[in-house]
Amino acid sequence: MLLPSELPSLPVVADLADPTLTSALHHLIDHKTKPLGALGRLEALALQLGQILGTEQPRLEVPQMVVFAGDHGLAAKGVSAYPSDVTWQMVENFLAGGAAVSVLARQHGLALTVVDCGVARDLTPRQAVAGQPQLLARKVAAGTQDASIGPAMTPAQCAQAVAHGMEVVRSLPGNVLLLGEMGIGNTSVASLLLARLCGVPLEACTGAGTGLDAAGIARKRQVLEQALQANAGAVEPLEALAALGGFEVATMVGAVLQAASERRVMVVDGFITSAAVLVASRLEPLVLQRCVFAHNSGEPGHALMLAQLRAQPLLDLGLRLGEGSGAALAWPLLVSACAILREMASFATAGVATKA
Amino acid sequence: MLLPSELPSLPVVADLADPTLTSALHHLIDHKTKPLGALGRLEALALQLGQILGTEQPRLEVPQMVVFAGDHGLAAKGVSAYPSDVTWQMVENFLAGGAAVSVLARQHGLALTVVDCGVARDLTPRQAVAGQPQLLARKVAAGTQDASIGPAMTPAQCAQAVAHGMEVVRSLPGNVLLLGEMGIGNTSVASLLLARLCGVPLEACTGAGTGLDAAGIARKRQVLEQALQANAGAVEPLEALAALGGFEVATMVGAVLQAASERRVMVVDGFITSAAVLVASRLEPLVLQRCVFAHNSGEPGHALMLAQLRAQPLLDLGLRLGEGSGAALAWPLLVSACAILREMASFATAGVATKA
Repeated sequence: MLLPSELPSLPVVADLADPTLTSALHHLIDHKTKPLGALGRLEALALQLGQILGTEQPRLEVPQMVVFAGDHGLAAKGVSAYPSDVTWQMVENFLAGGAAVSVLARQHGLALTVVDCGVARDLTPRQAVAGQPQLLARKVAAGTQDASIGPAMTPAQCAQAVAHGMEVVRSLPGNVLLLGEMGIGNTSVASLLLARLCGVPLEACTGAGTGLDAAGIARKRQVLEQALQANAGAVEPLEALAALGGFEVATMVGAVLQAASERRVMVVDGFITSAAVLVASRLEPLVLQRCVFAHNSGEPGHALMLAQLRAQPLLDLGLRLGEGSGAALAWPLLVSACAILREMASFATAGVATKA
Repeated sequence: MLLPSELPSLPVVADLADPTLTSALHHLIDHKTKPLGALGRLEALALQLGQILGTEQPRLEVPQMVVFAGDHGLAAKGVSAYPSDVTWQMVENFLAGGAAVSVLARQHGLALTVVDCGVARDLTPRQAVAGQPQLLARKVAAGTQDASIGPAMTPAQCAQAVAHGMEVVRSLPGNVLLLGEMGIGNTSVASLLLARLCGVPLEACTGAGTGLDAAGIARKRQVLEQALQANAGAVEPLEALAALGGFEVATMVGAVLQAASERRVMVVDGFITSAAVLVASRLEPLVLQRCVFAHNSGEPGHALMLAQLRAQPLLDLGLRLGEGSGAALAWPLLVSACAILREMASFATAGVATKA
């Protein structure tokens, strides 16, 4: 059990329910010059964005792509097809502009922040200069402990990571956050959290990650089974988070709670990002009102996790890269949904005949 | 049968097969800093765009959204939930900037051209001034004849519409065309072409269109059955097109053939646009190499048509609006696919370790 003194002080998240606004948004959408419901999922998205931002004329401002990075003790047990060094190397790639998320953030004008939550290498913080990506140093430790033999982090470390996430979001401008992550071994963390918090069999939660073969997946599943056994008592959300890791997930949990309390729109990327939302939603279910799920990942556990969250993702492109790449690809759909609400004419204003 | 003199002279469409380029593109994609295949469908899209544009560094230039509009004699038989007047009223809405496609074209910087292929009302052509939409007058007649009692158009009218489509594309700049349409009654045309050219039972081809109820769909199906019977002999692609209509579909067929011959990328919207691609592909199967299918429509016949075309659409958002709205929503994914090819680093250039 976490001691009360070890719990981070969590922000208050208000219920967005506002029947008057919701009804006004429905009326607005239904009277746009199109058959009823003809914009499909985009209409539900427009409704949600109006509700989150509390207006019939939502506008997404100064969008922030934040990539949370950390290393995992579990990686030493061969749960990934890539070595742990790839975590810091990819962080450098994000900053240099050569990674998928760098390219996509540039395309869409998303400010890119990388947060070192616990990368197993010294990284030099970098200021955001002239639209370049920034690196924030919020390292709790140089990677978590090996969760297959004990807790990945101490309660105090977990609380620190959550507090970091809250503080990072407070420091960022805008009303919308796109969430991404990097950390060799972190599909293992997502699988463990899905298994522990939702009771989904580990077999169904475990996939190829960055590209394990069948033997590799079997080995990974065995290591994850050990991790569940080594942390059998950790069943509450924050306990499970501390026990199963990792620092980037815990920091994201804080970021999600803070963003929800500030009524920011959150665009949730893939399996690992959804795992952070899962933990946050167990602490405060209302965070889900603010979450737009970008895509259904090619990693098989993700569909199960989305079902647990009752989430309907926007895209289904077989992506399994993480970094926030799926969130960036879905991003223009959010911009479209807002533009439809703000700019599309009604039957009355356009002088178009309605249904016979 | 069409007389040879009544056939438009169709452009030559070359096979894009280029094993050297294809292999170079595969190599490029597989060595980007991501696990093999981790960008899912975006990788296949990048490959296709590279193949169409004949380069490892594809760039989509001066994208053109073209909305083909026309009216349908069939509409008088109650096959749509909306009156025919909505066709010209929506054309005015496109030009005034208030329709969904107007909003989305503006968002993405797509030049918008509306082509009056056969709207049942006099419309004044409008030049493209300062990025405003343009209206091209390519009216064959003020709406087609009622296909439930005879051919929708004469062979000469069909040939004229096809020629118009070819000429319109020749007049437009850029290397990519987004195809959309407007015409009350035109889901009926798409259903008829799917039934006639692919032998799909009319029952499976016929849906609610702009919003018919069950009784309306039953009535629509009956009218479409009459149209198939009244044009029983029209089985060849151009004959079926002439017999079943409409002018906007025939003009689009010409546009698709011309764009394919010029090696332009085509972004295909929904059910009606796909019907034009179906006809064009029966005249020249190689057009399909150039087609990116934007989405799977909520109109049930569309999935059947996509299966006939062996097409895998990018989005599945339950859209059923037409206008090119789905093509516009998918557009940023094409831009992303090109940016990934051009801008993403390789493992070697980024100094990232490869798979163990």
